Amino acid sequence: MALIVQKYGGSSVSDAASIKRVAARIAETRNAGHDVAVVVSAMGDTTDELLDLASEITAAPPQRELDILLTAGERISMSLLAMAVSSLGFKAKSFTGQQAGVITDAVYGRAHIVDVVPHRIRETLEKGQVAIIAGFQGVDPVANDVTTLGRGGSDTTAVAIAAGLQADVCEIYTDVDGVFTADPRIVPSARKIEHTTYEEMLELAASGAKVLALRAVEYARRYNVPVHVRSSFTHVHGTLVTSAPARHTDDYFQHYREANVEAPIISGVAHDRSEAKITVVGIPDVPGMAARLFEVVANAGANIDMIVQNVSAQATGLTDISFTLPEGDGPSTLDAIRAVKDELGYAALRFDDEIGKLSLIGAGMKSHPGVSAKFFGALRDAGVNIEMISTSEIRISVVTRADLLDDAVRAVHTAFDLDGDAVAVVHAGTGR
Amino acid sequence: MALIVQKYGGSSVSDAASIKRVAARIAETRNAGHDVAVVVSAMGDTTDELLDLASEITAAPPQRELDILLTAGERISMSLLAMAVSSLGFKAKSFTGQQAGVITDAVYGRAHIVDVVPHRIRETLEKGQVAIIAGFQGVDPVANDVTTLGRGGSDTTAVAIAAGLQADVCEIYTDVDGVFTADPRIVPSARKIEHTTYEEMLELAASGAKVLALRAVEYARRYNVPVHVRSSFTHVHGTLVTSAPARHTDDYFQHYREANVEAPIISGVAHDRSEAKITVVGIPDVPGMAARLFEVVANAGANIDMIVQNVSAQATGLTDISFTLPEGDGPSTLDAIRAVKDELGYAALRFDDEIGKLSLIGAGMKSHPGVSAKFFGALRDAGVNIEMISTSEIRISVVTRADLLDDAVRAVHTAFDLDGDAVAVVHAGTGR
Repeated sequence: MALIVQKYGGSSVSDAASIKRVAARIAETRNAGHDVAVVVSAMGDTTDELLDLASEITAAPPQRELDILLTAGERISMSLLAMAVSSLGFKAKSFTGQQAGVITDAVYGRAHIVDVVPHRIRETLEKGQVAIIAGFQGVDPVANDVTTLGRGGSDTTAVAIAAGLQADVCEIYTDVDGVFTADPRIVPSARKIEHTTYEEMLELAASGAKVLALRAVEYARRYNVPVHVRSSFTHVHGTLVTSAPARHTDDYFQHYREANVEAPIISGVAHDRSEAKITVVGIPDVPGMAARLFEVVANAGANIDMIVQNVSAQATGLTDISFTLPEGDGPSTLDAIRAVKDELGYAALRFDDEIGKLSLIGAGMKSHPGVSAKFFGALRDAGVNIEMISTSEIRISVVTRADLLDDAVRAVHTAFDLDGDAVAVVHAGTGR
Repeated sequence: MALIVQKYGGSSVSDAASIKRVAARIAETRNAGHDVAVVVSAMGDTTDELLDLASEITAAPPQRELDILLTAGERISMSLLAMAVSSLGFKAKSFTGQQAGVITDAVYGRAHIVDVVPHRIRETLEKGQVAIIAGFQGVDPVANDVTTLGRGGSDTTAVAIAAGLQADVCEIYTDVDGVFTADPRIVPSARKIEHTTYEEMLELAASGAKVLALRAVEYARRYNVPVHVRSSFTHVHGTLVTSAPARHTDDYFQHYREANVEAPIISGVAHDRSEAKITVVGIPDVPGMAARLFEVVANAGANIDMIVQNVSAQATGLTDISFTLPEGDGPSTLDAIRAVKDELGYAALRFDDEIGKLSLIGAGMKSHPGVSAKFFGALRDAGVNIEMISTSEIRISVVTRADLLDDAVRAVHTAFDLDGDAVAVVHAGTGR
């Protein structure tokens, strides 16, 4: 039938009982006639426990050694899962990133996959066996050293293995039923998104939706891998992420072909509390000054998101520049800007970590006028003040006070008729 | 100065504090001007915890997956130890068995090292860095699969790495000061053996002395690797195992050249409680019957040790055959013999797991008559009945009742003037 890559996160394999449950699910898929390759994260809190051990040894462990340490987690979960699948009467073999042919660059801690050469996985599948692959890890073939992929690494491994195998679909198993029109913990009436495009999913992931890692979506778009985000606790259809679902003729996609006669204008509302805002006050409004500022920020390693520059005051020739960045990058970035205070000649530096970002995403807004008006109207009616704005073709994002973010999300969700009838079920825990 | 391979067992790296203590010891050795490669076991109870996890999943895990699972333990300890050494200002890198070039056959769970190709270890040492190597594991290069070496695997890894690097000495760190003339828990006055030969150490290890694994001694003898068994808790000289110590001109061996003007006649007394005895009663005393019996036993996978056949009773033409084997091999061996009862035509089968084995070892007994007489006299005076006897050129072993074993060990130890003045210090726990 189909060749399916399944990814199970840490919360799905947190103990022996849940590993057996996942094994039963894999057996089910095999019994339905599909070939199955499985990507698995480390068990539950294993990664955090290993990090704790490292921090007991030293505050600054060499990154190469940290990568070796952390990959022990997937080694444990993958071999246990292979044992569990074997005990159900199926042949199963586990493979490290290196054995699975996950080739990366040499950037320890946040390596990028540069190639996937899954000979051994293909051989295993051709023998009718189940291949279990360690997520989050690969090998730098030059040094023959193990690397880890950083945040969202196991999702990315799964999509990369699916691309390398030319699999029919990559199933990402999680503790919710799929991607929702908003975070169900904030908007209990949020609906599951049945189908969405890579572009919308990219904007959702970049705007704070945590169900699927941004890098995995980028990889899926590049190699056109259909991704199915679904719950490991239920059997309902999840969220399908593809370029065009009708193209897929396999039975697997029948549900989505029937369900998606018309794409909705708006996909969903995402939010993000993890950013902070830096404002450089009273900086001379002369050519090259902003360029210099952001050069300094980039050298500090910060990934900036939104930028706003005020209109310059004619009398003084000074302006203010604000930008947002991950909260954790704040201290080092502030240090870097302070170090060039004389050169930049600014008056003051402000740091604000009490902000929230809200984003409305939908491919339909390209062709449907009036979306912006309705969006800002809803925020106004909810009494939410807007501090910064940025947009793309299929997204509008605003920065607000953090304590108004939940109200803002609910107001926008309702304004765009995204509320469903059923209340979403959320299970505890999230994978990596 | 010298190139030293150090091996630390699980009890020496049971937590962050002890890992730091080992790192300090490695730093000391570097500061003394030596090059250091370190072989490390899994932390404390890690291996048992992983085995417990596996047994929660299934009673019969595939051995390939079990090997992958268990090797996670050394991956954790080696990277943490590399971090700890780095934090003391030395560059350190950890290596898996595969990365260290430990090539094995494909027998999962009890693989044998067939070659050591330590390119990366040598490069690391040449750069003045410390190489930390996972014990107990290797790679089967045909399948590119990880293997484990079974019991005593880390000792064997250390000796094999030392041989591959042509190291000056392989230091085996443990929780006692060296190899003793008897187990200090039974004979508190047992003395540390300053120096012994591979042959005597082989007999000691095969006869139940647990400080150094038999396979490691065999490997050391084959490649003529000096082995120094010593405590990680003190700085006293331990037991040196070599072919001829005077040959070594390095300062490292000065202590032993001075100490060992004359080799003692007797090295020590070893004991073993882990064996059981099977007696096949009333088996026809015809040619080929014993051969057939031991063929059946060998096919059951049992490693037999001592064999005794009674004189045949002339009237019946029947005899009894007794042999000892590891207690754990008892049930399957009994089953195998029962399965061919009609063919062998024996009258009864007896199983006795209440036996103990005592061995006296000494290269000097070859050239000193009277050792046997003194040995059996001491046992007689202690009221110990002898059930089986076996000898080699440098060893006499007897089987006694298990509850008399401690008395027997003490009696023989005293008879051969092995008692020392000081009481041996024993630290808790043992490594693998």
